[in-house]
Amino acid sequence: MFGSTYGNLFRITTWGESHGKGVGVVVDGCPAGLPLWEEDIQKFLDRRKPGQSQYATPRKEEDTVEILSGIFEGQTTGTPISMMVHNKDQHSKDYSEIASVFRPGHADFTYDQKYGFRDYRGGGRASGRETIGRVAAGAVAVKILEQLHVSIRTYTLSIGPVKCKKEAFDFSNIHKNPLYMPDMKAAELAGQYLSDCMKQKNSSGGIIECVVHNMPANAGDPSFEKLNANLGKAVLSIGAVKGFELGDGFRVGEATGLSNNDPYRYDENGKLIKVSNHSGGILGGISDGSDIILRAAVKPTPSIGASQQTVNKKGENVTINIKGRHDPVIVPRAVVVVESMVALTLVDMLMGSMTSRMDKLIQFFKTDK
Amino acid sequence: MFGSTYGNLFRITTWGESHGKGVGVVVDGCPAGLPLWEEDIQKFLDRRKPGQSQYATPRKEEDTVEILSGIFEGQTTGTPISMMVHNKDQHSKDYSEIASVFRPGHADFTYDQKYGFRDYRGGGRASGRETIGRVAAGAVAVKILEQLHVSIRTYTLSIGPVKCKKEAFDFSNIHKNPLYMPDMKAAELAGQYLSDCMKQKNSSGGIIECVVHNMPANAGDPSFEKLNANLGKAVLSIGAVKGFELGDGFRVGEATGLSNNDPYRYDENGKLIKVSNHSGGILGGISDGSDIILRAAVKPTPSIGASQQTVNKKGENVTINIKGRHDPVIVPRAVVVVESMVALTLVDMLMGSMTSRMDKLIQFFKTDK
Amino acid sequence: MFGSTYGNLFRITTWGESHGKGVGVVVDGCPAGLPLWEEDIQKFLDRRKPGQSQYATPRKEEDTVEILSGIFEGQTTGTPISMMVHNKDQHSKDYSEIASVFRPGHADFTYDQKYGFRDYRGGGRASGRETIGRVAAGAVAVKILEQLHVSIRTYTLSIGPVKCKKEAFDFSNIHKNPLYMPDMKAAELAGQYLSDCMKQKNSSGGIIECVVHNMPANAGDPSFEKLNANLGKAVLSIGAVKGFELGDGFRVGEATGLSNNDPYRYDENGKLIKVSNHSGGILGGISDGSDIILRAAVKPTPSIGASQQTVNKKGENVTINIKGRHDPVIVPRAVVVVESMVALTLVDMLMGSMTSRMDKLIQFFKTDK
Amino acid sequence: MFGSTYGNLFRITTWGESHGKGVGVVVDGCPAGLPLWEEDIQKFLDRRKPGQSQYATPRKEEDTVEILSGIFEGQTTGTPISMMVHNKDQHSKDYSEIASVFRPGHADFTYDQKYGFRDYRGGGRASGRETIGRVAAGAVAVKILEQLHVSIRTYTLSIGPVKCKKEAFDFSNIHKNPLYMPDMKAAELAGQYLSDCMKQKNSSGGIIECVVHNMPANAGDPSFEKLNANLGKAVLSIGAVKGFELGDGFRVGEATGLSNNDPYRYDENGKLIKVSNHSGGILGGISDGSDIILRAAVKPTPSIGASQQTVNKKGENVTINIKGRHDPVIVPRAVVVVESMVALTLVDMLMGSMTSRMDKLIQFFKTDK
Repeated sequence: MFGSTYGNLFRITTWGESHGKGVGVVVDGCPAGLPLWEEDIQKFLDRRKPGQSQYATPRKEEDTVEILSGIFEGQTTGTPISMMVHNKDQHSKDYSEIASVFRPGHADFTYDQKYGFRDYRGGGRASGRETIGRVAAGAVAVKILEQLHVSIRTYTLSIGPVKCKKEAFDFSNIHKNPLYMPDMKAAELAGQYLSDCMKQKNSSGGIIECVVHNMPANAGDPSFEKLNANLGKAVLSIGAVKGFELGDGFRVGEATGLSNNDPYRYDENGKLIKVSNHSGGILGGISDGSDIILRAAVKPTPSIGASQQTVNKKGENVTINIKGRHDPVIVPRAVVVVESMVALTLVDMLMGSMTSRMDKLIQFFKTDK
Repeated sequence: MFGSTYGNLFRITTWGESHGKGVGVVVDGCPAGLPLWEEDIQKFLDRRKPGQSQYATPRKEEDTVEILSGIFEGQTTGTPISMMVHNKDQHSKDYSEIASVFRPGHADFTYDQKYGFRDYRGGGRASGRETIGRVAAGAVAVKILEQLHVSIRTYTLSIGPVKCKKEAFDFSNIHKNPLYMPDMKAAELAGQYLSDCMKQKNSSGGIIECVVHNMPANAGDPSFEKLNANLGKAVLSIGAVKGFELGDGFRVGEATGLSNNDPYRYDENGKLIKVSNHSGGILGGISDGSDIILRAAVKPTPSIGASQQTVNKKGENVTINIKGRHDPVIVPRAVVVVESMVALTLVDMLMGSMTSRMDKLIQFFKTDK
Repeated sequence: MFGSTYGNLFRITTWGESHGKGVGVVVDGCPAGLPLWEEDIQKFLDRRKPGQSQYATPRKEEDTVEILSGIFEGQTTGTPISMMVHNKDQHSKDYSEIASVFRPGHADFTYDQKYGFRDYRGGGRASGRETIGRVAAGAVAVKILEQLHVSIRTYTLSIGPVKCKKEAFDFSNIHKNPLYMPDMKAAELAGQYLSDCMKQKNSSGGIIECVVHNMPANAGDPSFEKLNANLGKAVLSIGAVKGFELGDGFRVGEATGLSNNDPYRYDENGKLIKVSNHSGGILGGISDGSDIILRAAVKPTPSIGASQQTVNKKGENVTINIKGRHDPVIVPRAVVVVESMVALTLVDMLMGSMTSRMDKLIQFFKTDK
Repeated sequence: MFGSTYGNLFRITTWGESHGKGVGVVVDGCPAGLPLWEEDIQKFLDRRKPGQSQYATPRKEEDTVEILSGIFEGQTTGTPISMMVHNKDQHSKDYSEIASVFRPGHADFTYDQKYGFRDYRGGGRASGRETIGRVAAGAVAVKILEQLHVSIRTYTLSIGPVKCKKEAFDFSNIHKNPLYMPDMKAAELAGQYLSDCMKQKNSSGGIIECVVHNMPANAGDPSFEKLNANLGKAVLSIGAVKGFELGDGFRVGEATGLSNNDPYRYDENGKLIKVSNHSGGILGGISDGSDIILRAAVKPTPSIGASQQTVNKKGENVTINIKGRHDPVIVPRAVVVVESMVALTLVDMLMGSMTSRMDKLIQFFKTDK
């Protein structure tokens, strides 16, 4: 239900499956007057493009975006922005095996249960290509945030057992290695680990971290629409994400009030600061102006070449070796997807925060006339 | 925005703050013909009642629910069910300190930023009493799930460093100890740990686990409205929850495809089973019929008696020792809140799953005439 | 579905039926800092009170409102405002006849079809008391609009064959006659007509008109969320309303482009004006700054004492004479309900109009820091 | 806000403007297993095609639909159905006049107020081409309704002063005349009237009527989500519609309870019938199983060749004669748009009616396993 639409005031609707004519997104509620070109979108799509490194599938997917509506003379008009990427790689393959078995770790079984049958070609709607619409829309959201001076940095924190070390973080590294890690040494080790995975026809999971800088201190709502709850939903709606945490996250389970509470101080300039940021930038569901820090746990690519036990629809137990080449890890390509979902959520909730005070409402409509 | 309403087809709206006249909830979209009495609700509210053990605040809160509408002759009528709990403990206290300082770990600062001022008495809307409406509504949701043979079990998995051991799990223990732990030995150790915390005027975090049994295999939607995404939002909307995970959760970061994929088999009776359940009962965002397993990380109670650094509104750095007695741990009282949010989400998404197939739609409306 | 909640950013949820413990409403999304007292609400409720004239039922309903949450020191806090009116008139009557027959023009039959049974006492949820929550919330919306200098005037345009004459309009008359007509002569004639209706145990329909003054010229959205579409839904959701029109309304069917288009002119002060207002203040779904003019057609009270043919649940054709005294006309008491639904819609859509331009967004968040 | 998405469980999102690359719609929530081909959609689009008669603009618009996603082997898969029509008629015209003046009766002024500027080419998003997405989606909705044996008939009731006579209604006539009138004599007279309008470079309004047959008796909700309220919003969201009525509509203003109430009877076969249908098939907001009857008032085409007074952006009062050939009446092309909006609403609300009874819910999920 309501499945393919996300957001309230800034709202996107995605469509398309792996082997249809294309995939796309409609962005509704984008303010008029935002400069926007296809290059702005393409830059984001290129970050999730396959075939960019030895650790990603060598499939050729151009994924060239076309803007179909909502722009006039280089600016958004306030009407829906429709964007589309044509599917190129649709040549007929033999999907007979996938059609009749349920691949472990995939949505084959649940789709059949829910819909009675499925478009099994390339995973259909459950394909990673579903994220193209999210990223295209995310590019628009990030442009809006830039104009409000809010910035987002997203990167790979760990792949399998290899973790980036906080003390080795250098954010200029993120785009210098194909795994989007801020620690070059970790990137090298993770690369070796992935090579091993590939030799064993196996795959690896990992963790993505995202930091939002300069967020105004009033987005989010005290009850069900907490900013963290919406960020959690946004990130958990990405296929393969199995966990979400804010600030210290699961470590709070072992923390104490004294170790976990963030003290306030006025600094030498009289500016209010938080001495620490265990809370991850949100208190009571509302952004507090400090960095928002969140993490997503991403499961290993379910499509692997190694032998797996499963069943077919004829009622037989069978063994499957999934053919074709697949990414040995989802994480690097998912980095921009996490960033996009975070950006979409922030824009929507910033917009939603504009009506919380009567004095600001009066001011807005006074200026308005 | 949209802050106090949750759900689409089964929808609740909560209201009330700590020191107003009461707290309550309106449940809309409950099917007609469900037997419902105040006792059904009270049973759930009693599970979150304070003053039940040495590890909880000794405040006397009766929290007696009153059903104001939506019931006729012991059954729901299909119209909104309004429920209310009167606030008893409203005698005037001295809130001058809380009014002028920002308590660390609380929403004082963010409320002031968002709204310009706040009802500081007892935490206002940010009080734990906000969850009373969630739990009252959750009791209704659980009754609906019972009629569909879906059951939920929720318990404390860990408090501070003390973790329940899987091999020592005995679910009959859950209601035999005030910490709602399924492992009695762990409960004893956790109790000692909490006593130490209290002596130090400190508090502890912990982790809650929830297992849903017998969920039909078609709830949830492939894209933004994945069942796990909605469960995540539901649980993360509870104050103090800082992390959410499904199935193996954050452990997938170190897993491989081979270790994480759940093989399918037909058992001796020809029934399709999953050999393992790393996925936690959801694949592609849709329930797969196996147990749904999720966990929530709960931060330590921010209100502690120990000295903390903070600021006041006059621009001064100050030290605060929060007075009054507060729970040294939120976890046990939050167990029923997690269960309620899960139940509300399941009912809503089961309802939303009814329209996924044309054949079922035709069947439904054929029977209907 | 979604039945008892209205609005997106400014959102109300109503509950209660005729013979339950009370009726009420939760207002969510009200900006913080609005001065609000129970008197503000009571004033509106009193306008729909029965027993005020010879043309209304002499039932004694005090309908005293109680604010249960969301106010602190005389101002809204930004959290949900819960309001309740206790039902007084609940003494046991003999409802056996209503329980077993379907009253013509009432919702008895459709409720039974939809829910399987119904709370037949006093009409249950289908009672006119359902509007109390709308009016209490409408009073809040009107207060917000006042602060934005938007005003609404609502009155009875006709009752049965008696129509107010435009040339005799004097708005100071509206509250000088029990029928809320701006034309005193018409009010007198309508009174005589209603007396005749009552003698014949019959009832009358009528038409309500509403004019909104000083609406900013940007509320509403070009496609499905046109301001007129939302006003239409709001007004048509009031029981007994069977038609809605904007500006010239149904008369446009016979109009020509030349007679219906409103020319623009700059007046002597260089201010842009519309020479006429056939469009009723909305063009392309967006308010144009001129008066918004709308009308609602209200059907005659279905409860009448005269003999009517109907059926009972035993499968018999029967004749019913509805006992008790009922208003011979719904219109005067519905005037404030129409005004309330209009106000709720205007506030919601004004809030929704704040994000249409990037320059205003930048300005808002610049000021915000 | 929320502007281009309509519906809750069956939800459409439209996009596109007159002179962009195309217009389209994404249909989300369509049940899996509905046979659907491009021909099903094209048939509907052809009903709104211009250039079909002497009373419509001779512009050549092929409006050929392409389905981009959501179909597999001739059936819907349950995932979003994306449909697009490429804009053909984009050759550069001189829009300098339209760009600088506000055309009376158009949205030029309000768009500029709301968005700061507008895509003035061919009316942009405010063009009649915005309805293409509605009609393409409406075709899907009508196919679903057919499978549930619900049928809709929509036709022109009047054009200018020429009204179809009830006694002359022959529904087989509707598609035999270019004005979609069920009364051939009226069609002829209306044609003459339109010829006169065209000679005077003027245009005409009219009224559309729509009748829904065999609707199940439980769709709609008692309070804000009344079926009539949603139908009203749906129809009023069509550009040019200025009024909406159900059943007797505005005539109820002069009716009495005795004349307006519909008596119930059991017929000779023991079937419950309504003797009359003044209510138009809906009581208490819920469909009662009898025909749903509604009407929409459509204003005259605002684009006319005759001289009109208006202003330009330079602050001057000017006279405008709109060039190009425009339909002298919107009504005939709007017939299928009204039908589409009604169908979309009915499917959405039928889906929403499935959860009203606990016994049906239990039955549904029992069958489901």
